[in-house]
Amino acid sequence: MSSFFGENIRFSVFGQSHSEGIGVVIDGLPAGERVDTQRIAGFMARRAPGRNPGDTPRREADEARVLSGLLDGLTCGAPLCAVIENTDARSGDYEKLRHVPRPGHADYALQEKFHGFQDVRGGGHSSGRLTAPLCFAGAVCIQILERRGVTLRATITKMGDVEEARRRGDSVGGVIECVAEGLPAGLGAPMFGGVENRLAAALFGIPAVRGVEFGAGFRVASLLGSENNDEYYIENGHVRTKTNRHGGVLGGVTTGMPLVLRVAIKPTPSIALAQRSVDLRTMEETGLVIGGRHDACIVPRAVPVVEAVTACVILDLMMEGRL
Amino acid sequence: MSSFFGENIRFSVFGQSHSEGIGVVIDGLPAGERVDTQRIAGFMARRAPGRNPGDTPRREADEARVLSGLLDGLTCGAPLCAVIENTDARSGDYEKLRHVPRPGHADYALQEKFHGFQDVRGGGHSSGRLTAPLCFAGAVCIQILERRGVTLRATITKMGDVEEARRRGDSVGGVIECVAEGLPAGLGAPMFGGVENRLAAALFGIPAVRGVEFGAGFRVASLLGSENNDEYYIENGHVRTKTNRHGGVLGGVTTGMPLVLRVAIKPTPSIALAQRSVDLRTMEETGLVIGGRHDACIVPRAVPVVEAVTACVILDLMMEGRL
Amino acid sequence: MSSFFGENIRFSVFGQSHSEGIGVVIDGLPAGERVDTQRIAGFMARRAPGRNPGDTPRREADEARVLSGLLDGLTCGAPLCAVIENTDARSGDYEKLRHVPRPGHADYALQEKFHGFQDVRGGGHSSGRLTAPLCFAGAVCIQILERRGVTLRATITKMGDVEEARRRGDSVGGVIECVAEGLPAGLGAPMFGGVENRLAAALFGIPAVRGVEFGAGFRVASLLGSENNDEYYIENGHVRTKTNRHGGVLGGVTTGMPLVLRVAIKPTPSIALAQRSVDLRTMEETGLVIGGRHDACIVPRAVPVVEAVTACVILDLMMEGRL
Amino acid sequence: MSSFFGENIRFSVFGQSHSEGIGVVIDGLPAGERVDTQRIAGFMARRAPGRNPGDTPRREADEARVLSGLLDGLTCGAPLCAVIENTDARSGDYEKLRHVPRPGHADYALQEKFHGFQDVRGGGHSSGRLTAPLCFAGAVCIQILERRGVTLRATITKMGDVEEARRRGDSVGGVIECVAEGLPAGLGAPMFGGVENRLAAALFGIPAVRGVEFGAGFRVASLLGSENNDEYYIENGHVRTKTNRHGGVLGGVTTGMPLVLRVAIKPTPSIALAQRSVDLRTMEETGLVIGGRHDACIVPRAVPVVEAVTACVILDLMMEGRL
Repeated sequence: MSSFFGENIRFSVFGQSHSEGIGVVIDGLPAGERVDTQRIAGFMARRAPGRNPGDTPRREADEARVLSGLLDGLTCGAPLCAVIENTDARSGDYEKLRHVPRPGHADYALQEKFHGFQDVRGGGHSSGRLTAPLCFAGAVCIQILERRGVTLRATITKMGDVEEARRRGDSVGGVIECVAEGLPAGLGAPMFGGVENRLAAALFGIPAVRGVEFGAGFRVASLLGSENNDEYYIENGHVRTKTNRHGGVLGGVTTGMPLVLRVAIKPTPSIALAQRSVDLRTMEETGLVIGGRHDACIVPRAVPVVEAVTACVILDLMMEGRL
Repeated sequence: MSSFFGENIRFSVFGQSHSEGIGVVIDGLPAGERVDTQRIAGFMARRAPGRNPGDTPRREADEARVLSGLLDGLTCGAPLCAVIENTDARSGDYEKLRHVPRPGHADYALQEKFHGFQDVRGGGHSSGRLTAPLCFAGAVCIQILERRGVTLRATITKMGDVEEARRRGDSVGGVIECVAEGLPAGLGAPMFGGVENRLAAALFGIPAVRGVEFGAGFRVASLLGSENNDEYYIENGHVRTKTNRHGGVLGGVTTGMPLVLRVAIKPTPSIALAQRSVDLRTMEETGLVIGGRHDACIVPRAVPVVEAVTACVILDLMMEGRL
Repeated sequence: MSSFFGENIRFSVFGQSHSEGIGVVIDGLPAGERVDTQRIAGFMARRAPGRNPGDTPRREADEARVLSGLLDGLTCGAPLCAVIENTDARSGDYEKLRHVPRPGHADYALQEKFHGFQDVRGGGHSSGRLTAPLCFAGAVCIQILERRGVTLRATITKMGDVEEARRRGDSVGGVIECVAEGLPAGLGAPMFGGVENRLAAALFGIPAVRGVEFGAGFRVASLLGSENNDEYYIENGHVRTKTNRHGGVLGGVTTGMPLVLRVAIKPTPSIALAQRSVDLRTMEETGLVIGGRHDACIVPRAVPVVEAVTACVILDLMMEGRL
Repeated sequence: MSSFFGENIRFSVFGQSHSEGIGVVIDGLPAGERVDTQRIAGFMARRAPGRNPGDTPRREADEARVLSGLLDGLTCGAPLCAVIENTDARSGDYEKLRHVPRPGHADYALQEKFHGFQDVRGGGHSSGRLTAPLCFAGAVCIQILERRGVTLRATITKMGDVEEARRRGDSVGGVIECVAEGLPAGLGAPMFGGVENRLAAALFGIPAVRGVEFGAGFRVASLLGSENNDEYYIENGHVRTKTNRHGGVLGGVTTGMPLVLRVAIKPTPSIALAQRSVDLRTMEETGLVIGGRHDACIVPRAVPVVEAVTACVILDLMMEGRL
């Protein structure tokens, strides 16, 4: 059991790459919030393939149909369920892969976990396609956050040379940074329920994420305390820090400075190059060439996904219980 | 609400640096497991100050008293509660800090969250002292894991020059790597309840952690897919990968290869150097010199803490529900 | 946030009486379990209106479409989502009710909770219609339980005279008893995570349930200890009790005897008789006559729902974490 | 894993009847709330044995020591841990019972669950003694609730003749009703996270509770809809119902009318009369006479426990997340 996150708002994602549909249930949204579905579609389009040179040629309309939770365009307090039909699934490409796990994919791990019953078509439930409903959920949250003065924006801060990699049948990864502004100070909690804990737990749910860091992140290992500490000052009657190496969160709780996080995205494991693997039936080594349609780099498409997941967690944090 | 983690085993940590006691409740341990309290004491001693050149001069016996959950040295299925008395707390050092937040500490964030009612003495509930009960919990789990063939070991892979920093009243951080061996393949789950998600959520609960990564981690941004993918082969009838850039976990689920994770530890924010801050009463800027007893580098003391938290999460993952 | 239950399997229900669709996401089902959709349809038909004299004339096909989680008729470890389209919704009947709460319904409570933004059409998310996806979920679990030797059956043990009530525009309630056989001893847990706690929490989610009791239930108040205690004996090498006033569960944990529980179902609050209410706009008292289509007694239709919810919780309990 | 409850405030209970100590961790209390420990002691005294004719002769000071979470008598946002030492435990009385389960107790069920490793002394973790920390927790919450205008009071509405039962070595049960006043309308949620669900889940954690009902409860089975519905009217500008058969909660959400619930308490299973049981080692039937110190009726002592648990859940409900 694993495909949900959130404490005060619960986001449940369902679907497989080639199942009839994929979607999300969002339980616990505040009632009376206007949801602009046109804007959601615009946000989801940022994730859809075909906009960047390294993208998969798979084409999906990614039209989300809202089954529940909205009344006249406003949230009504009931769980919001959105469904996206899978229309361009070509299952023939994948069947052989059940017994020959692809390097860098979860194939073998899932084979062991689900005893061979997992859906291998297109990556099944572990497919990047499941980030479409995540984007839907994030787009809803972004609209609610904006009305509270919270905005966020992710950008690529590092990326390999896609063109060169694609030409060689290879792939590249990168780093995405997300900055959220307008958060109040005092959000989150110490120890295990804090901003970092909950964001990290959710962000590692995005396929291909291998690291999550806040503020100066891993760079803190090279800094002196005097370099890493952010001194306080007063600006227009507000407490601020002169620098923001803490990335807006200290000890699990926001300081009111911009929240800054970064995630490391690994190169797409599906590459055109021949690779070595094993046949799980014969337990012998074998060669493997992956067909199908793939991205040479998913980093650009992951940008809105990082925004989406961050927005979901922030809204969840803002709904924290209080008297 | 925030000071617990775990799905099948629940670890609840309580206490403040200067409260009467600190401790942990572990609910859901399997019954009939022998707990060697002598070995626990040995493990906790690795965290206690005074063993490394950069440590705080604060001295605590850190003797954990087990109030419940054990019968004749065996777990009995009831929640295990261990309490450590606070004996060397000197509260006089801290009172002034309520209104002048220390850079790099959570003081200001907590002041906003708890409206000034938080316990500021020695860092209160956010103090590194709370890692003592975490070590207790981890030491219990390590013993249970060892009987299932799972072992783990953390080491420092990067650290600043403590001696030089201490002499200047400054501090340094570092990176700790933890490797767990003997994990079965198939542990964890896709998306949000996976190995990475749950480990990261818990590890960010260790004070001063600013980043968590698995396998190649942030280095994936510089690798080609063909470099980052780990090819499978057969060794003694077992599926293994030739390299381990995936760090033993793919898509939330273990592969049976050693689990490899790293956490970034920031330099101790309490430094002897004069810093700038603000007075929250007058909302004016002011200078700040931090007295009290502090570590110039907590990285060595954090090593067993990283092992402890990792062990807790792994045991929790191994208790996953099944028919 | 409220429309899910379960610890190891998570059941998330969504939809409103008149939204585009209703459904359920079941996250955490064991993989490789055959799901017979024909048998599910048969089970769901027991809940559908039109089989009993007191039923609402609303007609719905209640055809559940599985969007995800199944592959070739077997669970694949991914969340199973089933959607039922709403086809016979007549929203015109309800609009006036937003401001004049119906006695015995949650109208006024929801108006206060959701500040008037709740979906009032047909009871919205609180409608008995939401028990259709519950029945779907229960029917899945029943099939899995049967393969482990667990069977369950609910029956009506008390009910008012429907015919007489319906003729007078009134309604009646009743009591449903559910018995589950084949449960192993040792299922559940002491205190708050036990069999009674989790069953009660879920069963009170069925609309109109006002009480839940186990074994002798409220009758224990009239019994002596010597009458209420069930003495043990040996039958074919198994420990059993001569009587079953404990209803198969003691202190949160099963004994291996049949699990016996009862729920009290109140009379349908929608009655044809004139009632007094208030107009929330003018804050003045007013008369109210409820139109629309209603059941004079929902007890017979609630029987499979009680079975369904009980089955979901039992399967969840059987999935409890262990090493 | 089972010994905690609560969503926004987490109450974790630990200890066994004869372990070194018992206690509770309360995580998530609002900060800045004054806690009068004298009043807590007074509340806990209502539960202590020796006040009613049917009580056990065991004597415990039941002095709760607060280890954390309070600063100068005010909650500080950190988990509050209170410990009660066990001082009058006489373990000799119980050892034989490991293999001969007492009728009406959880002995056999726990033996199966914990494979014989459970603590049998005095009922171990399932002992009524664990209601002492529950009373502590409830007493804290009652003080916080009172400041918000919420008060509650439990009373015995049915009880057997204790004197007669005790003389014969037997025991009696009863029914306790709890009424909470001052709750705002709109508290709770539809379906599974509602007032009834969460209260029932917690109340079944009190040892000996066999049924939980709200408002008219099981009596609804004998009522017509026109009798059970509570009509609305206006009183001093507030919406109220003329009668309160709904017990202040409809569909999971409060109406602002007094919350009314009842729990059925079974007769103490420990009776002095000879009973039949089995020896789990030889799997043969055997006689059993229970020695030790027991209550002939625990209903009076359970009254403050019902208040306590109800108060904990209500405060938890009032802390519900919101923007």
